[in-house]
Amino acid sequence: MQVDRQRVLVESIKRLLRRNAIPHLSKIVNKAHVADLTSAFRTLSISNQCRLFNLIESVEQKGILFSALDSDTFLDILEGMAVQDVVEIFEQMPTDDVADLIERMPEEKADTILEKMKQEGSEEVEGLLYYDNDTAGGIMVPDFIALREDTTAGEAIKSLQKEHVDVEMPFYLYVVDEYERLVGVSSLRQLVVVSPDKALKDFMVTDVVSVQTDMDQEEVARIVANYDILAVPVVDDKNRLVGIVTVDDVIDIIRREATEDILKMAGAGEEFVETKSIARSTRIRLPWLFVSCVGGVIAFFIIGYYEETLTDLIYLAAFIPVIMNMGGNIGTQSSSIVVRGLATGRIHTREIWSVVFKELSIGFILGSIYGSLVGIVAQFQFGVKALAFSVGIAVVSSMTIAALVGSLVPMLLARVHIDPAVASSPFVTTSIDIISVSFYFMIATALLSG
Amino acid sequence: MQVDRQRVLVESIKRLLRRNAIPHLSKIVNKAHVADLTSAFRTLSISNQCRLFNLIESVEQKGILFSALDSDTFLDILEGMAVQDVVEIFEQMPTDDVADLIERMPEEKADTILEKMKQEGSEEVEGLLYYDNDTAGGIMVPDFIALREDTTAGEAIKSLQKEHVDVEMPFYLYVVDEYERLVGVSSLRQLVVVSPDKALKDFMVTDVVSVQTDMDQEEVARIVANYDILAVPVVDDKNRLVGIVTVDDVIDIIRREATEDILKMAGAGEEFVETKSIARSTRIRLPWLFVSCVGGVIAFFIIGYYEETLTDLIYLAAFIPVIMNMGGNIGTQSSSIVVRGLATGRIHTREIWSVVFKELSIGFILGSIYGSLVGIVAQFQFGVKALAFSVGIAVVSSMTIAALVGSLVPMLLARVHIDPAVASSPFVTTSIDIISVSFYFMIATALLSG
Repeated sequence: MQVDRQRVLVESIKRLLRRNAIPHLSKIVNKAHVADLTSAFRTLSISNQCRLFNLIESVEQKGILFSALDSDTFLDILEGMAVQDVVEIFEQMPTDDVADLIERMPEEKADTILEKMKQEGSEEVEGLLYYDNDTAGGIMVPDFIALREDTTAGEAIKSLQKEHVDVEMPFYLYVVDEYERLVGVSSLRQLVVVSPDKALKDFMVTDVVSVQTDMDQEEVARIVANYDILAVPVVDDKNRLVGIVTVDDVIDIIRREATEDILKMAGAGEEFVETKSIARSTRIRLPWLFVSCVGGVIAFFIIGYYEETLTDLIYLAAFIPVIMNMGGNIGTQSSSIVVRGLATGRIHTREIWSVVFKELSIGFILGSIYGSLVGIVAQFQFGVKALAFSVGIAVVSSMTIAALVGSLVPMLLARVHIDPAVASSPFVTTSIDIISVSFYFMIATALLSG
Repeated sequence: MQVDRQRVLVESIKRLLRRNAIPHLSKIVNKAHVADLTSAFRTLSISNQCRLFNLIESVEQKGILFSALDSDTFLDILEGMAVQDVVEIFEQMPTDDVADLIERMPEEKADTILEKMKQEGSEEVEGLLYYDNDTAGGIMVPDFIALREDTTAGEAIKSLQKEHVDVEMPFYLYVVDEYERLVGVSSLRQLVVVSPDKALKDFMVTDVVSVQTDMDQEEVARIVANYDILAVPVVDDKNRLVGIVTVDDVIDIIRREATEDILKMAGAGEEFVETKSIARSTRIRLPWLFVSCVGGVIAFFIIGYYEETLTDLIYLAAFIPVIMNMGGNIGTQSSSIVVRGLATGRIHTREIWSVVFKELSIGFILGSIYGSLVGIVAQFQFGVKALAFSVGIAVVSSMTIAALVGSLVPMLLARVHIDPAVASSPFVTTSIDIISVSFYFMIATALLSG
């Protein structure tokens, strides 16, 4: 249903843009749900995006659209806008999104806008810029409801009706002491259920799950997901409540991190590139392929070094692909399992030796199975036992080493706090290729020549 | 903070288990947060898990733990339990989770439990079993608040205090007509803010985002994520409200689907295997490696076919790794981008030709760059122009074809509604290897021998 709705919208917009039917377009754009509008935006050219953007009347809608757009699109649209207009939109947006956008802007423009916002009393954004972009502090919003312990349920409801009208997600009410330190939490639902003169301290939950401002956003996301909560309070080093991270932002983080991991593992950058131009995509993917190219050239020199063996035993060349393939694929399996395990919290860096040992064992078992298989094919084809044996041993060692490298490298990287996903595909497969080919020719030379 | 808390818990539990300090253990287990307990459980052996599980007093805690455990662990614990105990736990759990667990149980046991639950009035679970596990109907919970249009805000609040006490997430109030058809939605927050004698129809939102029972769960997750809502109502084909899907389930789906895609792409099964035994992991990973093994053996025969060329020009063998590598890696890039793009909704199957054309162009550009580079290395090393040219052309064609295959295969699979992730790593890289090697020797034979 939703999918059809979006398609119909996209098609109507494109048709009306071609016809330049502004009044009609304006009507459609201002009636559409902002989520549909966002996905429609992504299918348009930059110039059409600008045309459409200017037709939107509601500053709020513009703000939501801003948060949802790609960096590139946002910067392009921004270029054509007056500072005052940008500030007006920013003032309608959640503070964390504003902080995010400001960081992406050219510095000069960012400063002008911050200055302007400060004049108009939005110091919160500057506060958020103080925290690292991918920590709890960087993604939190400062809009939350904090009340004192002796506030009654009835008073709390009144404060909701008056003071906290623009709080994004008013499902939890946080309870703080006189130093703003977090001491408890209750929910909107509790408020409605208990008698109005009961004090918060009598029904609040005191075992509050909270995070500190410097916690990594992935860790924050895991906590929200694991504890099944709609928002997590963020506290500073003195346990003072400074913001909350809401579940909708957590979903975005989880999706973005998964995309990032998948693309990094494949050596295809971090951000999703399909919507970018061919030139840009090419540039992003170029350096990662350089890794495999260098690896390939090194393998070339290794094989060249064994030219003599190869001249005598020409058929050795024919087994190069199967040995490289088996090593590369089991290495990819191991590294994908470890990278994903670390990302979802199923594997911890402190388990390094048990994980690596397990992968090593699996590599050896699978290596023995496929080594025998390939050895049998070699024996059947050439009837030379020493050859069959060399090829078999080469497959076993290649697969065992591949499982070792594929699991050890990401575990070690995670230990020293480097994203383990970067270690994957290009690096792991390339180094495995080099090791496999060297091993193969070493074994073959030892067993066959002489 | 949370991480430390979990580690401390795990260590205490292990120590107490070793000492068999049951009263102490019992105290700790019943005080711990269920999310911490779940992650502690994962680090224990099955027999210790059973010991610990029996110490938990709260049936509710047991239920939450049940939903959070692996299939295997759950089945093991289940084995030692009486039917009556299982039913008691199930009755405390969200219906969608119960339906999920029942589907994983041996049929006989499942039937006994369903029968028992029916006797005690839980027909809802059987209703949920009616829908496919991975559709909106299969993941929805039937606990929602539905009220008529002319209910006032005050009456609605009263109904929250009395009737709907055990509704999981009472943040939205759905409004239905006399035939139970969904006509609007309001929020708990609205209820508190408006005057108590106002009727729902006067302040409800009528443009409700809803999904149908047969919508795929990934699609449902995308909708909840894109519209930033905490729950989406599920309607049947007559637009009657039958359940809701809540944001915490959506987070689980998003994480699980990402894990599934990553593992499938690497040919390492679907479910996370690191926590499983070595034997089990080996079994899951074995068949996918068979694909690369067969591919390698085919490549072997292709190279064998060109034995004559190879005998004359022994150095050709040395370029096999670089050609396979470059093709394999760009193919992985293309397929990862397309698979992730399809999963997040950034790419649609109807854009097949524009996506494939773009990947083909990028493959050709990158192929030309790296083809020249490798060609230069060959020229520098051997000074044979025809060889440098063959190698260069082989890299260009291998990379272009790899980008084509890597993008086309997942797009086509998605079109015929097969999960595009299965097409990745083993299949794509293996077929690319075969094509690359054939091309290389064909070109080299044509240009060099003769």
